[in-house]
Amino acid sequence: MVASKQYPKKYGEGFSEWFDWIISEAEIYDYGRYPVKGVGIWLPYGFQIRKRVIEIIRSLLDEKGHEEILLPLLIPETLFRKESEHVRGFEGEVFWITKSGLEDIDVKLALRPTSETAISYMESLWIKSYRQLPKKYYQIVSVFRCETKMTKPMVRVREITTFKEAHTVHEDFEDSERQIAEAIEIYKKFFDLLGIPYIISRRPQWDKFAGALYTIAFDTIFPDKKAVQIGTVHNLGQTFTRVFDVKIQKRDETIDYAWQTSYGISERVIASVIAFHSDDKGLILPPNIAPYQVVIVPIYQQESKEKIIEYCRKIAEMLRESGIRVYEDYRDNLRPVDKFFEWELKGVPIRIEIGLRELSNNVVTIFRRDTMKRDVVAINQLTEKIRVLLNEIFENLSNRAWKELLSNVKLFNNFDEAVNFVKEGGGVAILPWCGNEKCVYSKLEGLEGISALGEVYKDSLNMLKINEKANEYRSCAFCDRQTRAFISIAKKY
Amino acid sequence: MVASKQYPKKYGEGFSEWFDWIISEAEIYDYGRYPVKGVGIWLPYGFQIRKRVIEIIRSLLDEKGHEEILLPLLIPETLFRKESEHVRGFEGEVFWITKSGLEDIDVKLALRPTSETAISYMESLWIKSYRQLPKKYYQIVSVFRCETKMTKPMVRVREITTFKEAHTVHEDFEDSERQIAEAIEIYKKFFDLLGIPYIISRRPQWDKFAGALYTIAFDTIFPDKKAVQIGTVHNLGQTFTRVFDVKIQKRDETIDYAWQTSYGISERVIASVIAFHSDDKGLILPPNIAPYQVVIVPIYQQESKEKIIEYCRKIAEMLRESGIRVYEDYRDNLRPVDKFFEWELKGVPIRIEIGLRELSNNVVTIFRRDTMKRDVVAINQLTEKIRVLLNEIFENLSNRAWKELLSNVKLFNNFDEAVNFVKEGGGVAILPWCGNEKCVYSKLEGLEGISALGEVYKDSLNMLKINEKANEYRSCAFCDRQTRAFISIAKKY
Repeated sequence: MVASKQYPKKYGEGFSEWFDWIISEAEIYDYGRYPVKGVGIWLPYGFQIRKRVIEIIRSLLDEKGHEEILLPLLIPETLFRKESEHVRGFEGEVFWITKSGLEDIDVKLALRPTSETAISYMESLWIKSYRQLPKKYYQIVSVFRCETKMTKPMVRVREITTFKEAHTVHEDFEDSERQIAEAIEIYKKFFDLLGIPYIISRRPQWDKFAGALYTIAFDTIFPDKKAVQIGTVHNLGQTFTRVFDVKIQKRDETIDYAWQTSYGISERVIASVIAFHSDDKGLILPPNIAPYQVVIVPIYQQESKEKIIEYCRKIAEMLRESGIRVYEDYRDNLRPVDKFFEWELKGVPIRIEIGLRELSNNVVTIFRRDTMKRDVVAINQLTEKIRVLLNEIFENLSNRAWKELLSNVKLFNNFDEAVNFVKEGGGVAILPWCGNEKCVYSKLEGLEGISALGEVYKDSLNMLKINEKANEYRSCAFCDRQTRAFISIAKKY
Repeated sequence: MVASKQYPKKYGEGFSEWFDWIISEAEIYDYGRYPVKGVGIWLPYGFQIRKRVIEIIRSLLDEKGHEEILLPLLIPETLFRKESEHVRGFEGEVFWITKSGLEDIDVKLALRPTSETAISYMESLWIKSYRQLPKKYYQIVSVFRCETKMTKPMVRVREITTFKEAHTVHEDFEDSERQIAEAIEIYKKFFDLLGIPYIISRRPQWDKFAGALYTIAFDTIFPDKKAVQIGTVHNLGQTFTRVFDVKIQKRDETIDYAWQTSYGISERVIASVIAFHSDDKGLILPPNIAPYQVVIVPIYQQESKEKIIEYCRKIAEMLRESGIRVYEDYRDNLRPVDKFFEWELKGVPIRIEIGLRELSNNVVTIFRRDTMKRDVVAINQLTEKIRVLLNEIFENLSNRAWKELLSNVKLFNNFDEAVNFVKEGGGVAILPWCGNEKCVYSKLEGLEGISALGEVYKDSLNMLKINEKANEYRSCAFCDRQTRAFISIAKKY
């Protein structure tokens, strides 16, 4: 953690290098040194960020009646292979246990790539009647996917350590659709609370979750202008309940297979926090997930040391009493400027600097990480000022992030122009569309590296200010038929 | 969850059957139905108990400067095999991944049975100087051990889902010894906060952790009078730092291998909570880990329903405002007596019953789960009464548990009498001892099923009121030499 003038730049070509640098230097995630490909270590500072992100999603789910459980990691091959479409989707990426101790084992065990099969098996034992429904379970666990593409820390890993998977059960299709809407609202709130901007799309059939009726996805755009899937919501229909025999007695006393949905997020959410809320100097953490919201750095000569530290402690105590998370940096072997550098890198939202001048005037100097601006505040107004500032910083981060996303989304009438925009690293192109997936598939087939994110969701059309332009875009950019919707294309992680 | 008069009895022969029954009926842990041997599912109610137990140990560790991290689950064979004694201790129980997708993989991957090898490898990259020390890490994760003995829910499982493993690094032996003392204090506090009684022993060399200098263990005694290891603390010396090359610059500028300790607990802690804090009617949860501390059950006829529920809601609100966790049971399809039965089984510490009589007198009836006694309390005294009662219930549970443990520990001068006591299901026998392990080993060798827990720790001798008798026990029960210590023997899980 030594000051260096040559650190990588976030925007442009260097994003990937910058990302590796920041997660290492800010002591978030140790990646690429442990001798297994595609796995990383959450370091103490990163772990605290992760923990707060988890607490946010947990409280949003609990609020809506989800119940947290913990399913086994191991899925026997017999269970895993029951649903054929699901198997085809995952079997290329599954880690298999074939030995225990020195012995071979009878039935191979998969490390869960996701838990639809495990929970459906249990649901056939747990759920018998519509009276128990809707039932909403979730767990937050590691899942394993032996990615064959190039691995990337937090974004494409083989051990996904922060996989929140929700699994719900319903009496009928209508109720599963209501659940899909609820899940989308929960994820919107979640990303909003982290200031992460997103585009919601309905994935094309060829890109849906293996076994689902359809998949709704949340994507965001990274500084390298590629789209990243950060959350998915699946209507599973009766796919798994049929093969696992999850039958219920319905309100009308008939017996039928139940309906399911599932929805997941991963540490890509944390990667997105880093990608958006940061600059060339390092992180800028949203105050609600910052391990420390305020760091206090004393500035003293040997003779003033004692009374300045005493003053710092008093201020720290005062802030803590109103629930603000404070770190007091009294390390002796570092100059104040080195501490400034370190805490700017680690993204602490507010720094308080206290020297003799502050002490004698009953004030402190505060420094906002997002604007890099200083201000002087009287002690008796400090707590209130910090509260206001933490909110302002969050608003500012969130607004900046949305602005950045919007600047990377462009509406096109012409397919070739859209493709050029994406190819040249422009971001996400949105096109008027007749609604026929074949139309899109045939045009994209030959274009290596460009994918359809899918039909842009109504909400997102509003947020992207596209709905208002709908009248100007009357014909499908693929086939000239009448426009029914908008579809987006992008380079995708 | 139907009332049945034939449920199994906790004490005597039936403990194991009783334990299976209670974890299933109280909806804590679904075991034996998922098609992989030795793994279980934490159900919503059990998960909430587990979560609170985890929060307690987390806050005790954080308070003492431990930092939470998350290491990879997968350990490559090359890393795992580096320390030979460690390998011998674990290799019979390791699950191995040999395939990913349809391909064989080059270097087999172990599911961690514990993380000494993984973290020592990383510490060789992280730690360079005594200035960084002591360093205290921990993680709370699943570990995997393919147990060959009969598996038992929470007690001997193949996926240990709630493994808290701490790993510390020190400049020298003295500091590692200070850490061992700190770890023991943390675990004592932890078990005290759960009202779980324990005996602390230094394990014999033949039963220490594979790779450690020595192991200190916490044992408790289950209703079947068998000893159960519920926590261990290991001084690892320089065993792992040598093979993983964790070298540090010391205060005197020399370079040397660092010293390590590690200490762990598992869901056996939760099994112990269940084993002690329960009776033939079900659980009695310590209030600090109870998902609900108070359940409110309304008793009404159709015509009084509305106003009674309104009264219940007001009371629930009042209790919640002072931080008490309340569940309001307004289910229409159950009689009050069925609700009583269910919440008694699930161990909610206090029940509030509210009918017309309570409503018209501005009182409620409260029922204590531990004593099964009712009392009538005026509304304006209720919050305070509940607070006091929750403390009293905890004290009562803790006292009962210690009394039970003490009743199952007996001091013997004569080895054969001690063995008979243990054989006949008496519990833990304590014997005066010369301190020579060979003495004990040779006597126990032929005795199938009886183990030495080890030298009883000073603290425990006091708690077991044995120190005061030390003068009467002057000669070793194994060899007639002079007594230096006390050793315990028992049937062990």
